[in-house]
Amino acid sequence: MAAADPGRVDAWRQRADHAIGSALDTLADSEPRLLASMRHATLLGGKRMRPLLVYATGTAFGVAEDALDPAAAAVELIHAYSLVHDDLPSMDDDALRRGQPTVHVAFDEGTAVLCGDALQSLAFAVLADAPQPPAARVAMLRELAVAAGAGGMCGGQARDLAATGAGILDIAALERLHAMKTGALLRAAVRLGALAADVDAGTAVRLDAFADALGLAFQIRDDLLDVESDSGTLGKTAGKDVAQDKATFPALIGVDASRQRLQSLAATMDEALAPFGERATALAALGRHAITRTY
Amino acid sequence: MAAADPGRVDAWRQRADHAIGSALDTLADSEPRLLASMRHATLLGGKRMRPLLVYATGTAFGVAEDALDPAAAAVELIHAYSLVHDDLPSMDDDALRRGQPTVHVAFDEGTAVLCGDALQSLAFAVLADAPQPPAARVAMLRELAVAAGAGGMCGGQARDLAATGAGILDIAALERLHAMKTGALLRAAVRLGALAADVDAGTAVRLDAFADALGLAFQIRDDLLDVESDSGTLGKTAGKDVAQDKATFPALIGVDASRQRLQSLAATMDEALAPFGERATALAALGRHAITRTY
Repeated sequence: MAAADPGRVDAWRQRADHAIGSALDTLADSEPRLLASMRHATLLGGKRMRPLLVYATGTAFGVAEDALDPAAAAVELIHAYSLVHDDLPSMDDDALRRGQPTVHVAFDEGTAVLCGDALQSLAFAVLADAPQPPAARVAMLRELAVAAGAGGMCGGQARDLAATGAGILDIAALERLHAMKTGALLRAAVRLGALAADVDAGTAVRLDAFADALGLAFQIRDDLLDVESDSGTLGKTAGKDVAQDKATFPALIGVDASRQRLQSLAATMDEALAPFGERATALAALGRHAITRTY
Repeated sequence: MAAADPGRVDAWRQRADHAIGSALDTLADSEPRLLASMRHATLLGGKRMRPLLVYATGTAFGVAEDALDPAAAAVELIHAYSLVHDDLPSMDDDALRRGQPTVHVAFDEGTAVLCGDALQSLAFAVLADAPQPPAARVAMLRELAVAAGAGGMCGGQARDLAATGAGILDIAALERLHAMKTGALLRAAVRLGALAADVDAGTAVRLDAFADALGLAFQIRDDLLDVESDSGTLGKTAGKDVAQDKATFPALIGVDASRQRLQSLAATMDEALAPFGERATALAALGRHAITRTY
């Protein structure tokens, strides 16, 4: 992470991991194989981009770190569940994730379905116990549920499934797909931090603009990494998009134009955060990371 | 339904259907195949037992019917998602549900996974917009999330998967399995109504006792129906439990003892509801229905 303060980012990752671990500990009496699959899906690493966005946004506007733990854990639990289900044979059929066997490979397909289902439920249970006042908590729960659902993440994955191999997407359709599949949850992470901080409407609009640019940049960088990397570095199967004839930014507009688009999104992010000055340092660093990351 | 007022039950079913339909209408811009699968999973009938429990409980303690619509829709959306995923080839592998092809048969397996995922998210989105005060809404959201997750419904299904064919369950383990797999969500339905009504602690304890007895009775009756019925009457594949060597009450304690157990659960329900008198008429009728139902 190219943050001004890498130690802070590491501490946030540890906070999120601890919050997720504590949430799983509340389920110690659950069916052992299901619980083991949930730990496998959540505690074997990962960038924790979404929790970092919750912490960076919330602390920028005055919320204490510990008051952000439940929201950080909740958004990562939703992300983790989506990876488990996306990796299923009936979806993207991937055997490797974060350098580890995917859940349906390490366990079995039925367990992987239940694992994702239970992680989604756990996300809302964790968020329901957040320390924000009830009205803010309800708004946060609504935000996460809407972002995760058919109008957001699930809808984006459905578009992705429908488009794979069909070769009919133009660049606008691809951007719309990613705005839902990846962007909705990244934006929700920023919004959860903003709702916890009870920011004013103008700030919320700027944070949305930042988050939307970050979400698109994150996906374009993901597409470029699939072209540029090998599986060992990436921790998942590289070259898969091309093999599956997936619509990607490099495939539709070329590698150079994709890189240029990243630079223009960097400018959009800087502009959105400009009025916040120093307090947005961590958010700006996360934006730069989305564009420069190599894993 | 053997209710004292069948018209009221029909009206409640229509209210729940309408609330679910309205929730799906908010997703009109979603990927068409995903949305069609969600309609297929939710709007093709079903007993609506869980919404009826929400209405019967809430109205018994003074809540207006329309204030219960979101909770009724939410609990049914969770139930509907669980059926879509339970029917998957990697889970119970069933082709027929409510007399219709299951979602993965009518659509495809990837769509069925996403359909269930999106229905779960929608449940929480709908409940977040319920008209109860924020603190009550948070409690309702927590209740639904905990009941649906690894400590409840998902955990019960995981136990069921682990036990199928293994032949190692005793009657206590089978009751525990069903208390989680079916019972947790039926109890959540009663609790959502109770939370909406802000009932006192003593009332809550009695309602839990009623709901736990109803949940177990519901499952024993389900097991008996699998033995007694044909697929046409049942609307799903009959004789499946025996074919899959599933632990069931008739298999473990016999048909006669299962029927006797139902009668004792009927007495437990009557006793739990006794202090509520006339106001619990609809709840009592739902309890009797759980025991006598033929579909």
